[in-house]
Amino acid sequence: MKFDLSKISQPTLLLDKERVINNIARMREKAQQGNVLFRPHFKTHQSAEIGEWFRQNGTNKITVSSLRMAEYFAKNGWQDITLAFPVNIRAIDKINEIAKRIRLNLLVENVEGVEFLGHNLQTPVSIYIKVDTGLNRTGVWWQNTELVEAIVSICQKSKMLEFAGLLTHSGHSYRIQANINEIYSQTAQRLNELKSAIKKKFNVPCLLSIGDTPCCRTLESFEGIDEIRPGNFVFFDVMQHQLNVCAEEEIAIALACPVVAKHENRQQIVVHGGAVHLSESSMPYKNGSEHFGFIVNLSENDGWGKSMADSYVRAISQEHGIIQAGESLFTQTKVGDLIGILPVHSCLAANLMCEYLSSDGQYIKMLGG
Amino acid sequence: MKFDLSKISQPTLLLDKERVINNIARMREKAQQGNVLFRPHFKTHQSAEIGEWFRQNGTNKITVSSLRMAEYFAKNGWQDITLAFPVNIRAIDKINEIAKRIRLNLLVENVEGVEFLGHNLQTPVSIYIKVDTGLNRTGVWWQNTELVEAIVSICQKSKMLEFAGLLTHSGHSYRIQANINEIYSQTAQRLNELKSAIKKKFNVPCLLSIGDTPCCRTLESFEGIDEIRPGNFVFFDVMQHQLNVCAEEEIAIALACPVVAKHENRQQIVVHGGAVHLSESSMPYKNGSEHFGFIVNLSENDGWGKSMADSYVRAISQEHGIIQAGESLFTQTKVGDLIGILPVHSCLAANLMCEYLSSDGQYIKMLGG
Repeated sequence: MKFDLSKISQPTLLLDKERVINNIARMREKAQQGNVLFRPHFKTHQSAEIGEWFRQNGTNKITVSSLRMAEYFAKNGWQDITLAFPVNIRAIDKINEIAKRIRLNLLVENVEGVEFLGHNLQTPVSIYIKVDTGLNRTGVWWQNTELVEAIVSICQKSKMLEFAGLLTHSGHSYRIQANINEIYSQTAQRLNELKSAIKKKFNVPCLLSIGDTPCCRTLESFEGIDEIRPGNFVFFDVMQHQLNVCAEEEIAIALACPVVAKHENRQQIVVHGGAVHLSESSMPYKNGSEHFGFIVNLSENDGWGKSMADSYVRAISQEHGIIQAGESLFTQTKVGDLIGILPVHSCLAANLMCEYLSSDGQYIKMLGG
Repeated sequence: MKFDLSKISQPTLLLDKERVINNIARMREKAQQGNVLFRPHFKTHQSAEIGEWFRQNGTNKITVSSLRMAEYFAKNGWQDITLAFPVNIRAIDKINEIAKRIRLNLLVENVEGVEFLGHNLQTPVSIYIKVDTGLNRTGVWWQNTELVEAIVSICQKSKMLEFAGLLTHSGHSYRIQANINEIYSQTAQRLNELKSAIKKKFNVPCLLSIGDTPCCRTLESFEGIDEIRPGNFVFFDVMQHQLNVCAEEEIAIALACPVVAKHENRQQIVVHGGAVHLSESSMPYKNGSEHFGFIVNLSENDGWGKSMADSYVRAISQEHGIIQAGESLFTQTKVGDLIGILPVHSCLAANLMCEYLSSDGQYIKMLGG
């Protein structure tokens, strides 16, 4: 038995352990074949226990997106952590505390940040420059060699700052109809141009790191890149599936939701499962409206199967999910049943739920849970 | 001093206690003047301590939206709790556990639910029928007197089910350009028509309860209604302000966010403060795009002032907030500063943050924190 559904009385985040283990193994293998370092992003699962599944697979370097996560995973034995968020200098005390215990890799993207670190760090850290290769969210624009050189130069003058390389997040690969191959080529080319400029002036190592799951998953090889930091792949989700990044069968979490009402005139089912469980992330549905999750049947022995072609989460509020049901789902479903929802964005759903029920019968805690 | 900003190093949810106390007092006074029962919804703040501020103001009946909240507030001394969500019969053990300790009021909207309760409850509870007066989310459609009568009839035959009244949530009052007066009149009229039908057949009390903050806040009187259950008013938010339900000066929480980067070419400021802090709730901005929060200056002595006319949160991702800054904000702001964001939807932001820093210097815990 995968899940003892009879014991589930509240919205519960089910985790198919076999799928997670396979997702981890496949991505790690890909990194090995592509001859790149594998530094998975743990912001998706945020769980010490799931971290152990990575460790068993040979992972020893990780990525996180907040100091809180860095602290949590450092406490759980991770010795080499990249905090992939522009450094928050207000948190220097916590940074010093963590940097004393592990190898901490920080991101900078301005002179103020790196100078502040140089003056206030008590232990050496590795410094990556966050580079904007096209997403336009944050980072030094890849053509701004002047600023990049200024940062490297500050690192070279400081005993606390060891310049390590360039890091980018090509998050524009998440956009619908993005050309993922093209984005990868452009990203790699831009990072390498910048690296050449650095190498002309400085005798430093310069590792190149990328992070988005779409590129990491779909590319055949990682020419010109040294490290990948995908995160979402551990669970995948409907968004990645709709972006053609994963097969639906690879989605490894589903929210089990109790049915509380049925409305025949509009063929809708109301479940306990809303914005505080799934987040408000939505994607376009095939009928032109937006949806907040795909619907699956839950089974004790098999977990969940293929999503239903004619049913979807049409609306959510704080605690409610409104399922627009196909005829067969509507007819079969009774008040008190459980319905499974594949989340649109697994990182945000996991962050809200704080706990998983694994297919091996264990409840798995995460940061904040 | 209201807030010791120098001690804030991470995204922190600031709470202006004076504003909260005023918001509570004003709504309670309104209920008293309108001669309706005041049963505030605690799903917005989810905090035992803030609950005490209500208690000090004379509140002794509350509303929650999940059994988890019912359990938490029952443990914190609340003796009369309405769980304003269609009953989840899978959770009957927990329902029985809580019903033994306090007066628990449950919502039903179908025969299956109420029959199940009749057979499985171990302690009597009060039953409200959830009525759909126009929102079309959930509840018995107000004209479906047949189903309502069937439910009342089941209650009458059971020792465990005490029929208490009709409850609705006119959530369509949250829609942009909703005519709140019209929605209220229609809601009250529909509930009263249904009540008349019940009274013709059954000799039962039939309390009428409404819940949306827009109606509760803006109506001058509550003719035809017995109870109000507003929740959001305790903090309000940018959504309520943009719906003309509250003044901006009444918004009682703001997220303090560390500035990590500035991008001059697009006049944007990047803060630590994203979807895991604010949620993804958005509203239309005056320039036609959507926004994820208004921007305020934070001050140690005064908390925060009026939002800036030319700056807003333009985009968010898991941890990042991207602020489109007006010239003066952009020029004044340095990396390492704190910027305040008024959330679009305070219920979801509070649910994510799990903790408040109050203007009296105390950290206030909440459920899950």
